Amino acid sequence: MVSVAILGFGVVGSGVAEVLSTNFEKIAHNAAQEIGVKYILDIRDFPDSPFKDCFVKDFSIIENDPDVKIVVETIGGVGAAYEFTKRALLAGKSVVTSNKELVATHGYELLQLARERNLNYLFEASVGGGIPIIRPISQCLAANEIDELYGILNGTTNYILTQMIQNGVSFDEALKDAQKEGYAEADPAADIEGHDACRKICILASLSFGRHIYPDSVPTEGITKVTLSDVGFAKSAGYKIKLLGRTVKRSDGKVTCYVAPHLVGENNLLANVENVFNGIVVHGNAIGNVMFYGAGAGKLPTASAVVADIIDASKHFKARKQLDWMESSPDTLFDSATLENRWYIRCADAMDSAEKIFGGLAALSFAQAEGETAFITESMSKTALDALLKGLAPLSVFRVLD
Amino acid sequence: MVSVAILGFGVVGSGVAEVLSTNFEKIAHNAAQEIGVKYILDIRDFPDSPFKDCFVKDFSIIENDPDVKIVVETIGGVGAAYEFTKRALLAGKSVVTSNKELVATHGYELLQLARERNLNYLFEASVGGGIPIIRPISQCLAANEIDELYGILNGTTNYILTQMIQNGVSFDEALKDAQKEGYAEADPAADIEGHDACRKICILASLSFGRHIYPDSVPTEGITKVTLSDVGFAKSAGYKIKLLGRTVKRSDGKVTCYVAPHLVGENNLLANVENVFNGIVVHGNAIGNVMFYGAGAGKLPTASAVVADIIDASKHFKARKQLDWMESSPDTLFDSATLENRWYIRCADAMDSAEKIFGGLAALSFAQAEGETAFITESMSKTALDALLKGLAPLSVFRVLD
Repeated sequence: MVSVAILGFGVVGSGVAEVLSTNFEKIAHNAAQEIGVKYILDIRDFPDSPFKDCFVKDFSIIENDPDVKIVVETIGGVGAAYEFTKRALLAGKSVVTSNKELVATHGYELLQLARERNLNYLFEASVGGGIPIIRPISQCLAANEIDELYGILNGTTNYILTQMIQNGVSFDEALKDAQKEGYAEADPAADIEGHDACRKICILASLSFGRHIYPDSVPTEGITKVTLSDVGFAKSAGYKIKLLGRTVKRSDGKVTCYVAPHLVGENNLLANVENVFNGIVVHGNAIGNVMFYGAGAGKLPTASAVVADIIDASKHFKARKQLDWMESSPDTLFDSATLENRWYIRCADAMDSAEKIFGGLAALSFAQAEGETAFITESMSKTALDALLKGLAPLSVFRVLD
Repeated sequence: MVSVAILGFGVVGSGVAEVLSTNFEKIAHNAAQEIGVKYILDIRDFPDSPFKDCFVKDFSIIENDPDVKIVVETIGGVGAAYEFTKRALLAGKSVVTSNKELVATHGYELLQLARERNLNYLFEASVGGGIPIIRPISQCLAANEIDELYGILNGTTNYILTQMIQNGVSFDEALKDAQKEGYAEADPAADIEGHDACRKICILASLSFGRHIYPDSVPTEGITKVTLSDVGFAKSAGYKIKLLGRTVKRSDGKVTCYVAPHLVGENNLLANVENVFNGIVVHGNAIGNVMFYGAGAGKLPTASAVVADIIDASKHFKARKQLDWMESSPDTLFDSATLENRWYIRCADAMDSAEKIFGGLAALSFAQAEGETAFITESMSKTALDALLKGLAPLSVFRVLD
């Protein structure tokens, strides 16, 4: 029997306990040994929980129990979660987490701590909820040089955009709806401003390219400026607006990473990733494009990923998983403003002034509605685009992904 | 340095040698040791190959060299491939393969042989080419009870159907085109009759449900009877025709497995899986639906999956991968004719006779063209459907997947 301690009995933590209990036999078969919850750390009381005998309020009980081999951190944030993760690793226990903020912020340090002690620090659930993505990148695509990765990484914003696109409701209404459905927090900033997607693309970029990419170095734009008018113009040209995290490796080895709304072609697989679902596309030099799709959040999907990591950790107490990256360095990043792609522009100007500036560049489509003009440019860098936009009054500027 | 022997220098075998060479450093980093090709077994000569010094014609050289720890079987078929795989395992070498026919036919026996000797027999490349699917099912979804799995598993037939749907060319023309493009063999039977998809769904079902499902127990229907008239009727009702392999586990633990053309709703993610690409949907009790998408065949994508297995095998000489299933038993399977779903029917009868028989069952849509009637029934078993169809002259009968 492998004894596990769960830190934090919130949505994910309670889901982990539930999956370990419901699928006990399947898990024991796959792990080749039984796995049971010995402790659950939470400051609250849960007298009616079927796990009520497991609860403790003092982390040192877990820390000092040599029987606990795996600690599951589902507290979230970078406070207690950070402290307890370090203490668990220092006490010789492997740690499994769903905490994207902690991995994106302190991943390098924690992975190093784990490496030095021949322990595992696993975080499949930190990106894409239950979607297998960390392990496929680190193992299944291990024979590839990955050069690009992008995806719909945040279910809340994808739900809001889907409501705007399918039902024509405004951003504000769609946000209220998402809050009512429990898909958005009372304070939705982390989602709608793109910070959640930013943490996830940082983890995926770090894993794919081998250097820690820190969130504060990643230009991040949310969806608060997307209007129904943008949605309508995009639709008329065969596109849907999606919030994407994207990371690209240049041939000189430098990497860029950003989060922003994109126009995605209707025949692109990501265009059919609707509501709270996530989809992630990885491009490798041998495999070409592969896509991973599924529930990007939610109690049981996320717990499913956490428990897969618990199983994996239980099978690798001696042979450590190769899941690691190096510290960032000053020459790790290049500026995403140099990345070339087509652009969607909506402006308050008349069509002829827009055509005068952009028409000569073989812009693909112009449309006009309610005194506004929208069009899609040919491929160019943000730097080149900004120079041209000086002559116009742009209201929206989004990258286009065909 | 881990020494590898490749059996068969065809498309996949030469791709494996190429990927091991091109991505040598990335692979050495991920495997934490260098991996090199020591032997290539082929009856042909390749005097101009950069690997020309590796070629041997006698398998016993590989078999008797204790330096060779991993044998890559890319011969195909169940003749020499079967014999050499057994001999390699008996000689204490782990085996990695892309050979779906061998795994589907003798997987249980070979896995048992590997288990008894604490060796690995890995076959990520046998399904979905380069798409990570075997490892995600066995590891990432290890915390789930999987109850259903279906997908577009054959690129050749998907290319033909895509040509029929997008360009309105007939089956025969599309097949010729596929042969010209190198996507179909001169003898295309294994693809167009569904046998290739059958082998793949057998492997996925065996892995997901833990019992060997043999191809000869799986009802298999190809795409040779799909007409442009079916494609047109389907399109008018918002569907695309796709060849799916599907396997379902009933609550009593019994499993069914079949291959057949389906009408897939245009908003279903599989509807946008076009041309030679594959897409596989897995449903687990914790994770819900997840989908995996990518190139289902091709030299480098398939080699990418083989090499990922080589890396994995090189890291697990002592700790065997949990990748295994039991022998089939008489109570493993249930009859797919009892599975209920909606059905697409095209018949030579007038619409009113079709409506007379099916209309009362709340059939969803009727259409008529060129003297033929097509419609979609409500959900029912094949057995119930066949009883009703006795009154009509059906030309096509396909399952519907919304």
